[in-house]
Amino acid sequence: MATIDSTPKQDGFHMPGEFEPHAGCWMLWPERPDNWRMSAKPAQAAFSEVAEAIARFEPVTMGVSKAQYVEARQNLSAAIRVVEIPYDDSWIRDTGPTFVVSGEGLVRGVDWEFKAWSGPEPPHYASWDRDALLARKVLDLERADRYESDLVLEGGSIHADGEGTVLTTEECLLNRNPDLGREGVEEKLIQYLGAEQVLWLGEGVHGDGTSGHVDNLCCFVRPGVVALTWTDDRSDPQSQRSMDAYERLSAARDARGRKLEIHRVRQPGPLYRTKEEAQGVVEVEGTKRRQAGERLPASYINFYIPNGGIVAPSFGDPHDEPALAKLRELFPDRKVVTVPAREILLGGGCIHCIVQQRPRG
Amino acid sequence: MATIDSTPKQDGFHMPGEFEPHAGCWMLWPERPDNWRMSAKPAQAAFSEVAEAIARFEPVTMGVSKAQYVEARQNLSAAIRVVEIPYDDSWIRDTGPTFVVSGEGLVRGVDWEFKAWSGPEPPHYASWDRDALLARKVLDLERADRYESDLVLEGGSIHADGEGTVLTTEECLLNRNPDLGREGVEEKLIQYLGAEQVLWLGEGVHGDGTSGHVDNLCCFVRPGVVALTWTDDRSDPQSQRSMDAYERLSAARDARGRKLEIHRVRQPGPLYRTKEEAQGVVEVEGTKRRQAGERLPASYINFYIPNGGIVAPSFGDPHDEPALAKLRELFPDRKVVTVPAREILLGGGCIHCIVQQRPRG
Repeated sequence: MATIDSTPKQDGFHMPGEFEPHAGCWMLWPERPDNWRMSAKPAQAAFSEVAEAIARFEPVTMGVSKAQYVEARQNLSAAIRVVEIPYDDSWIRDTGPTFVVSGEGLVRGVDWEFKAWSGPEPPHYASWDRDALLARKVLDLERADRYESDLVLEGGSIHADGEGTVLTTEECLLNRNPDLGREGVEEKLIQYLGAEQVLWLGEGVHGDGTSGHVDNLCCFVRPGVVALTWTDDRSDPQSQRSMDAYERLSAARDARGRKLEIHRVRQPGPLYRTKEEAQGVVEVEGTKRRQAGERLPASYINFYIPNGGIVAPSFGDPHDEPALAKLRELFPDRKVVTVPAREILLGGGCIHCIVQQRPRG
Repeated sequence: MATIDSTPKQDGFHMPGEFEPHAGCWMLWPERPDNWRMSAKPAQAAFSEVAEAIARFEPVTMGVSKAQYVEARQNLSAAIRVVEIPYDDSWIRDTGPTFVVSGEGLVRGVDWEFKAWSGPEPPHYASWDRDALLARKVLDLERADRYESDLVLEGGSIHADGEGTVLTTEECLLNRNPDLGREGVEEKLIQYLGAEQVLWLGEGVHGDGTSGHVDNLCCFVRPGVVALTWTDDRSDPQSQRSMDAYERLSAARDARGRKLEIHRVRQPGPLYRTKEEAQGVVEVEGTKRRQAGERLPASYINFYIPNGGIVAPSFGDPHDEPALAKLRELFPDRKVVTVPAREILLGGGCIHCIVQQRPRG
């Protein structure tokens, strides 16, 4: 694995859309008891179900710590590759590399600066030295060369359409990089994602501890088409956020000059953390506290797009079924499956947050 | 990675010759200070040189502990893939899987029982739980299914010609498996290596802490042709061992009914551990002691055969040059390179012991 001094754009590389073909994807086994309740057992069951669902579509590699190796290997089917790798928490969307491809089919990766989601909020845990090294280790394993960017960015804060357009939010990237400013961030995104244009949304999902990751709010269905989490309840704090996003998307043209087709997907709930769920977590100094009664940042947009499929969350909520129907309508050529995801949501994210695709190249 | 209940022979798999095409190979970064002197720095330099030499011929993956990740990554070139994996010591020939291939080009691996070279001698270190799990972890990473054998065997105790013949020694495998007896061991070798015939040599190299690993004594150059370590000095304890091997090889026919062509390669030295070399090691309860003045099990046979090459040891010894000339004669179609290997030898093995090939399949 070489570290390359130039940028993907300079070398003719770009981030493909998630809906483009993958060689496979990566996940990380949840473990830390200060974020995952009851020794992470319920989360492990949920992650396992996500992994098995994806494995029906494409190869899955599950990273796991030495302490949990036997547990993970025994609980995952033979189809899933289990590899040991150190990490602080299991959000590989945010801590893994962002893969970029060239016209010749070469694959490289971008290793962003990671600061545990701090800015403007404090970091989610006190140390993240293992997370900070994760991307380069994944790239080494994938035999992919590495671009190193000093932009503070987690993978959940960006979506690309693979045709020059990047979607992100002001709430996240401007707060993460206060010294760079909007133009500075935009230039880095263009250089490191091989893009031409950045579509800025405002705020992300209400209650989202990531300070507005776009992958919980809005995603590309295909170039020119986006899906947006939504509520018609004007008294819900999410309403204003989604309406603002809708207005910006309606006014925008993408890098190819297209107007966007926007699909609204009614959010679940609202959902809240129960007292029992909050009590199952071990309190640790420096770790973000999970409080009983707090609003959970639930959204159906936080799905993953494996080859030929969609793996979407369900929450045991009345809105599950209409959301599933909507996804089937949006992705008529893909098999849409759902996995109960409340245990992932309790940790602060959802299905998209725990998977990182490796494009086929 | 599935664990398969049958045997390679039953499924039409066999161990190919090392001289057949590889997809690449594995090594492990030396670290433990109770075996590698001076914080393993000199050994790391030697292992690095071996890795870089092999990388000119085929892809190399270097396993490394979390503690040494940055050290290893910084000291190895970009061509070498560095992956974290736990192990107790860095002899992947002995602790890694033995890969087997099918006629259709599928690749699987055999995971043998590992007991840290104990029997008849004590184990080389007090615990080997990480070594015991290594083979299955490598197989998972290689996306290769796994056969599990209860035969106590390290990979250095066998060589295969890929055409039905396996070479091993009584000194090693009969002592490792006293309850099985010769026929019991032979049946397991035939089943798990997909072989037809076992050629038994007697003892291995004098002073070898592995209790007679064949890979330090004798190897296949190609089917029907073997190389054997040798000395004409009748007063050297190695002399009787090599002569016995020569006689057995001369009397043998391989699985295809061929008489063997036997090439003798004059051993280096004899070489002995210096006082300074012995003092650089940290003494730990339960770890085999390295004593000043002890004979080192030096042999030129302990080379590795990457695609299109030979990576052989040199010892700064007058016999280096004739050995190199002999290897060039034996492998006229390969580029033969040498690497100074005394620091590897001080740890108890040599180049072949620290590399495990993954056949192309």
